[in-house]
Amino acid sequence: MAAEPQIKIKFGILGCAGIARKVSRLDLIFSPTYAVGSRSYEKAAKFAKENGFPESAKVYGSYDAVLDDPDVDAVYIPLPTSLHIKWAVLAARKKKHVILEKPVALNVAELDEILAECESSGVQIMDSTMWMHNPRTAKMKEFLSDDSLFGDLKSVHSCFTFAAEEDFLQNDIRVKPDLDALGALGDAGWYCVRSILWAADFELPKSALALHGTVFNKAGVIIACISFLANLTMDVTIVGTNGTLHLHDFVVPFEENKASFSTAVKSGLIDLVTGWETKPSQHTVNTELPQEALMVKEFSRLVGSIKFEGGKPEKKWSSFSRKTQLVIDAVKVSIEQGYVPVEIKS
Amino acid sequence: MAAEPQIKIKFGILGCAGIARKVSRLDLIFSPTYAVGSRSYEKAAKFAKENGFPESAKVYGSYDAVLDDPDVDAVYIPLPTSLHIKWAVLAARKKKHVILEKPVALNVAELDEILAECESSGVQIMDSTMWMHNPRTAKMKEFLSDDSLFGDLKSVHSCFTFAAEEDFLQNDIRVKPDLDALGALGDAGWYCVRSILWAADFELPKSALALHGTVFNKAGVIIACISFLANLTMDVTIVGTNGTLHLHDFVVPFEENKASFSTAVKSGLIDLVTGWETKPSQHTVNTELPQEALMVKEFSRLVGSIKFEGGKPEKKWSSFSRKTQLVIDAVKVSIEQGYVPVEIKS
Repeated sequence: MAAEPQIKIKFGILGCAGIARKVSRLDLIFSPTYAVGSRSYEKAAKFAKENGFPESAKVYGSYDAVLDDPDVDAVYIPLPTSLHIKWAVLAARKKKHVILEKPVALNVAELDEILAECESSGVQIMDSTMWMHNPRTAKMKEFLSDDSLFGDLKSVHSCFTFAAEEDFLQNDIRVKPDLDALGALGDAGWYCVRSILWAADFELPKSALALHGTVFNKAGVIIACISFLANLTMDVTIVGTNGTLHLHDFVVPFEENKASFSTAVKSGLIDLVTGWETKPSQHTVNTELPQEALMVKEFSRLVGSIKFEGGKPEKKWSSFSRKTQLVIDAVKVSIEQGYVPVEIKS
Repeated sequence: MAAEPQIKIKFGILGCAGIARKVSRLDLIFSPTYAVGSRSYEKAAKFAKENGFPESAKVYGSYDAVLDDPDVDAVYIPLPTSLHIKWAVLAARKKKHVILEKPVALNVAELDEILAECESSGVQIMDSTMWMHNPRTAKMKEFLSDDSLFGDLKSVHSCFTFAAEEDFLQNDIRVKPDLDALGALGDAGWYCVRSILWAADFELPKSALALHGTVFNKAGVIIACISFLANLTMDVTIVGTNGTLHLHDFVVPFEENKASFSTAVKSGLIDLVTGWETKPSQHTVNTELPQEALMVKEFSRLVGSIKFEGGKPEKKWSSFSRKTQLVIDAVKVSIEQGYVPVEIKS
C-alpha cells in the first residue's frame, strides 16, 4: 500500500491483550514494529508471531523493559485507561514519544500530569483518534471553513452507537470500573465529543449537559449514553447558516480505500414546495493508506522532526486531547449530578 | 397525476393570504376546490383566479360565509395559529370536517376545546402534517415494526432547520407573537416532535427537555430552537437495537415523484476494523400523488365514510395532533423555565 518511504521511528507497544485483533496489521502501520512488551513474555512472543513482526523485533516480558530499551523512540499505549497515567508518565520520563489510546485518561487532572511530563521531557504526544487523520477529514474541513459554502456553525449532531455482544458487556475492559471506568462515554463518546470540537475549530463549549437515559451496568460503568446497546451507527451532521454536512461512518469509513460525505449549500425548496432546488451532493475522497497508518505517519513525521531536526513537539495534538477530555469530564459530572448543565473551564 | 376517482367532498378554504404560494396546486389537491373565503371578497376572488379554481367555485368575503354554505362538507384552515380556536370550533359547530394547519393550537387547552367540538359534532379532524401521508412513511414504518430488522427503539434524532430570509424574519406570521406565537417551535419543531412520536408508535415521552440556545426575536417569539437560522436541513435518524434508519428530507422529499430512505441492519465492522460488513441500503418509494394530495385523499375517504356510510370519525388523527401539541407545550415550558425537564401528562 505505502509507496513513499516512511521516516524510521522505532515503535514499542505496551501491552497486547485486548488489542491483538484490532491492530493485526501493526506491521503495516508501525512499519515495522520494533518492540512489544507484555506482563508475560510468552504473551508478547505469541503476539509478535501472530502479527507477523520481523525476527529482529524485540519481545519483552514487561512494559518497563520496552521503556528501558534505548533504541525505542516512541511507544503506542493501548492499555486500559486506568493505567495510562502510570505508563504514559513513565514513557515520557524515559523520553519516549507517546501515542495514547482514547480515552487518554480517567480525567483531566490525570491527563495534565501526563502532559506536564511530556512537556518537560520534550516528547510528542498524540491520542489515537484515527479518523482525524483520514484525508476525508481535511476535505470536510475545507467545506466547513468556506464561509460562502458553510457559513457560521449552528449545530453539530454526532452519534456513535454499537450493539455490544453479551461477552463484551460482561468481559470487555470498557465495562470494568477498575479498567475503563469511563465506559461508553470514554469509548464511543470520545469520538462524538471530538467530532463536535473538531467541527467548532476546537473552541470549547461554555457548558455540557448530558441527556437523560444513561444506562449503567451492575458495576456502575456507563454502558449507554453514547451507547453500547444499539445498532452500529456513526453519524455526524453539521449545520451552518449556509450549508449542511452529513456523514454516516465518521469513526470507521464504510470502505478502507475511499470515504465519502455529503454537503448541501444554500438549500431551498422549489417554488411550489414540492421538492428541493438542489439535492445534497456526495463527495468521495480516496485513501491510499488506512487512517491508522496515516496517523502513525504524521506522528512519525513530528517525532522525526524532533529527533533529527531539533524541532519542538506539535502542541495542537495535546490541546485536542485535553479539550476532548475536559468535555468528557463535564458530561460525566452532568450525569452524576442529575443531568444538569456543567460549566467547562479550560 | 391522479387516475383513480376521488370521493367527492366539497372543500372550503378559510383564508388565503399567507398560503397562496404554498397551495398553488389546490385544484389538484382539493379536486376541485368548492369555495374560498377571505376577509376581503377581492382577495378571495383573486386567489380563486390565480389558483385556477373552476368558474363554479364559490368566492366569499368572509370566513363565516364559507361555514354558512350548506354545500361545504369540509374546510381547510391555514389561518395563523392564534385564530385556530375560533374558526376550528365554529367550523365543527357548523358540522364541517376540518383539516387544520400545524401547529394546531397555541396550547393543548385550546386544542381540547376544538377537539371537544369536533367530537360532539361528529366531524373528522386531521392536522396538515403532510409527510405522514407519503407512502415512504408507511414503508419506513414497516421497517421500524420488524423486530428482526429494527428491534427496540433506542433513539430518534430529528432536525428541521431552514435559513429564513430577512423578509420572513420581519414579516412572516411565524415571527409574530399575536399570530403564531409558537414561532419556530410550532413551525419546524412541530415536524420534529411528530417524527419522534411517530417513530415511537405515539407513545408519549415521560418528559421533555429543551436544549439551550433558543433564540427569540424582539417580540419574544422563538426563531431558533429547531431553527429558522440555519441551512435547510430535514434529518431523521432512528436507531434501534438491530437497525438504523436515516433520511434527510423527511418533511418535503427531495423529489416529488419518489422518496428514499436508508436502512442498516445488524451492522458490524469487518474483522480488522477496516470497514463495514455491509453498507446501509437505499430504498426508494414511488409516489404517484404528492403527499399533500394523499393527505386530502385520506381525509376525504374518512369524511366520505361518515357522510355516505354512517361511519364514525377516525380518532387516531386527533390523538396524533394532541400528543404532538402536548410535547410542544412541554418543550415551551422547558424553555421558559430555564431548560429544565418538564413532565408530560396526557
